[in-house]
Amino acid sequence: MAAAFSCPVFLPSTFSYNGNRYHGRIKIKINATSSTKVKTLNEIAGAAKRSSSLATSTEIRHLSQEKIRQRIPTKKQLVDPYRQGLIIERGVGYRQTVVVRSYEVGPYKTATLESLLNLFQETALNHVWMSGLLSNGFGATHGMVRNNLIWVVSRMQVQVDHYPIWGEVLEIDTWVGASGKNGMRRDWLIRSQATGITYARATSTWVMMNEKTRRLSKMPEEVRDEISPWFIDKRAINEDVPEKIVKLDDNARYVNSDLKPKRSDLDMNHHVNNVKYVRWMLETIPDKFLESHQLSGIVLEYRRECGSSDRVQSLCQPDEDETLTNGVEQSLLKNMILTPGIMEGNGYLGPLDVKSYGYTHLLQIKGDSKNEEIVRGRTRWRKKLSTLPYSS
Amino acid sequence: MAAAFSCPVFLPSTFSYNGNRYHGRIKIKINATSSTKVKTLNEIAGAAKRSSSLATSTEIRHLSQEKIRQRIPTKKQLVDPYRQGLIIERGVGYRQTVVVRSYEVGPYKTATLESLLNLFQETALNHVWMSGLLSNGFGATHGMVRNNLIWVVSRMQVQVDHYPIWGEVLEIDTWVGASGKNGMRRDWLIRSQATGITYARATSTWVMMNEKTRRLSKMPEEVRDEISPWFIDKRAINEDVPEKIVKLDDNARYVNSDLKPKRSDLDMNHHVNNVKYVRWMLETIPDKFLESHQLSGIVLEYRRECGSSDRVQSLCQPDEDETLTNGVEQSLLKNMILTPGIMEGNGYLGPLDVKSYGYTHLLQIKGDSKNEEIVRGRTRWRKKLSTLPYSS
Repeated sequence: MAAAFSCPVFLPSTFSYNGNRYHGRIKIKINATSSTKVKTLNEIAGAAKRSSSLATSTEIRHLSQEKIRQRIPTKKQLVDPYRQGLIIERGVGYRQTVVVRSYEVGPYKTATLESLLNLFQETALNHVWMSGLLSNGFGATHGMVRNNLIWVVSRMQVQVDHYPIWGEVLEIDTWVGASGKNGMRRDWLIRSQATGITYARATSTWVMMNEKTRRLSKMPEEVRDEISPWFIDKRAINEDVPEKIVKLDDNARYVNSDLKPKRSDLDMNHHVNNVKYVRWMLETIPDKFLESHQLSGIVLEYRRECGSSDRVQSLCQPDEDETLTNGVEQSLLKNMILTPGIMEGNGYLGPLDVKSYGYTHLLQIKGDSKNEEIVRGRTRWRKKLSTLPYSS
Repeated sequence: MAAAFSCPVFLPSTFSYNGNRYHGRIKIKINATSSTKVKTLNEIAGAAKRSSSLATSTEIRHLSQEKIRQRIPTKKQLVDPYRQGLIIERGVGYRQTVVVRSYEVGPYKTATLESLLNLFQETALNHVWMSGLLSNGFGATHGMVRNNLIWVVSRMQVQVDHYPIWGEVLEIDTWVGASGKNGMRRDWLIRSQATGITYARATSTWVMMNEKTRRLSKMPEEVRDEISPWFIDKRAINEDVPEKIVKLDDNARYVNSDLKPKRSDLDMNHHVNNVKYVRWMLETIPDKFLESHQLSGIVLEYRRECGSSDRVQSLCQPDEDETLTNGVEQSLLKNMILTPGIMEGNGYLGPLDVKSYGYTHLLQIKGDSKNEEIVRGRTRWRKKLSTLPYSS
């Protein structure tokens, strides 16, 4: 099910979990690329035994404390009153009610893209939490942990039709589905609780990696048995042919160099959290453009992870041709036409506001001899209808 | 009540709301310093009339949309199921149940100080929300809005005994009290929902400022009538004499210059959110120290705000003398002795871990002729008992 969410969305975090790095490129067609021998249960048991005999009594107490404090369910739960979570969709989907918090909104009282990405990560992990499949760690199932496997994200796409505002109550639905033979798709929908209007939709693709060898892995049968009962054949975003993202080079119009990950950018896997990647991308776009435009869609293709000592370069390039021929744009347009009762105003997309603007993005590690891609991205933007700040 | 929370905690945000800046220093004894003529109700009504005739129909639709989507209560509410909030303490205190989210924790799965500060801000605003006193804007009461008044924070103190971990359920209590004749105190307690153990406590002091003149103001009678029924004479932190924080100069051991506020650092008042100040302070402490120590207490004294175009310098200086003579430390020690069932392990302070380390901090705007203080701070630290990362 739900399962398989070993690292937060956008977080190819575990790429360097034990100090090693995955330097290759994630290919989604795993069959054609690489797989790795997964450890046998005996090997795992032996490793666990060795590691437990090395653990101090403090560490053991500490781990049992953690259990008491976290209370991760060992069986499937249908309702979680604290998380305001609910299992839906014939027992396999997850819905969580959230209130947009004061610190999740930006200057115009609307939720930031970062906040939406954080809520996607949170609801995905809570989905696994409710499933009873969550092992110790950051979202991996018991079967994955037995096989030393973690999830890595390879692609993420988000469309925002309307931005939620401070204090607004939202319902976030999330579910998983198959993606090829060895991958998993995770989708999300964000709706206004009061009106039922869909505000945002997202889809992501995940593959499995051996934590030790850093190589991509086939999905072991025991993991497939855990998660496939949770698969739903439903899509938040209909996209026949994923848009290809060109690789930018030094000729890109805007370049932000020497970006340094900070301590506060690291998450529980000791990695730069992926949401920070998006921040770096967006900060490279000129302020003048950002002030008058609102992001309507983003596509991210992850290539490798970024460690805390890396120096990162962010490049972006606006589209020259602003016609509506782009895939993301067309899909946005389609959604607009399908959405009943489109409203005007802050956070709402007006029906005449169909002209959109595109940017291509690249984050890379600037090396002495060559650069290494971290993530490619495409963003789509629309003009803000109103820049009226809320009166105070 | 609750009321009076015009800007997020630590956010002297509204200092430059309309482009002006408050360049003076906040003095808590308002009587002895300045006050300003507050507008009469007639003047306000006239201004509202003029402004409404200037507003476009789009703006009006947009504002009414906002009302429908936010649903700010116009009467006192006793329970809010979405926020998981509850009015307690004979009808004037507020309690909210929250779950520590995956993106609120740092590398060791423990909530970051930033996350705690965000939760303080959130619960304070929700307290005002529940009171029925919240006007449009960022926490001001109806009476404050009628008088063009906003709150500005002058001091904040936080003590963290135990850090909550990912997935843990917390209860956060907050309440307000009088602070001198014209100020307000707001306190918080964070407890483990499962065990009732207190994890953190905080107190803050707020004064009123005229939004237009940027001058400190007396508390008008109508505002006092709104908020004083909510005052409780109870303190989260007992501190007889507030510790004096010395002002650092260029001789400070660690200096981080040329810090630039980013777009994502701005909050709904178009200001650098105060939580970012704390991030800048902590990032100036050497990594080596941060890796082996955990923050146990922080005191912040706000002097002036920081605009988005300012270049900020962060200075810090470790204490030379590490004996237990410091006020914060003594109060920490007292709390430890009072806390029943102190547990060991990650996020928990062990009973033998009483040695603490102090740093003095300063954030300032580096000017051509002189520097301008933004905030002075003191942090206290204890050695981490365990640096064991959670197994994944």
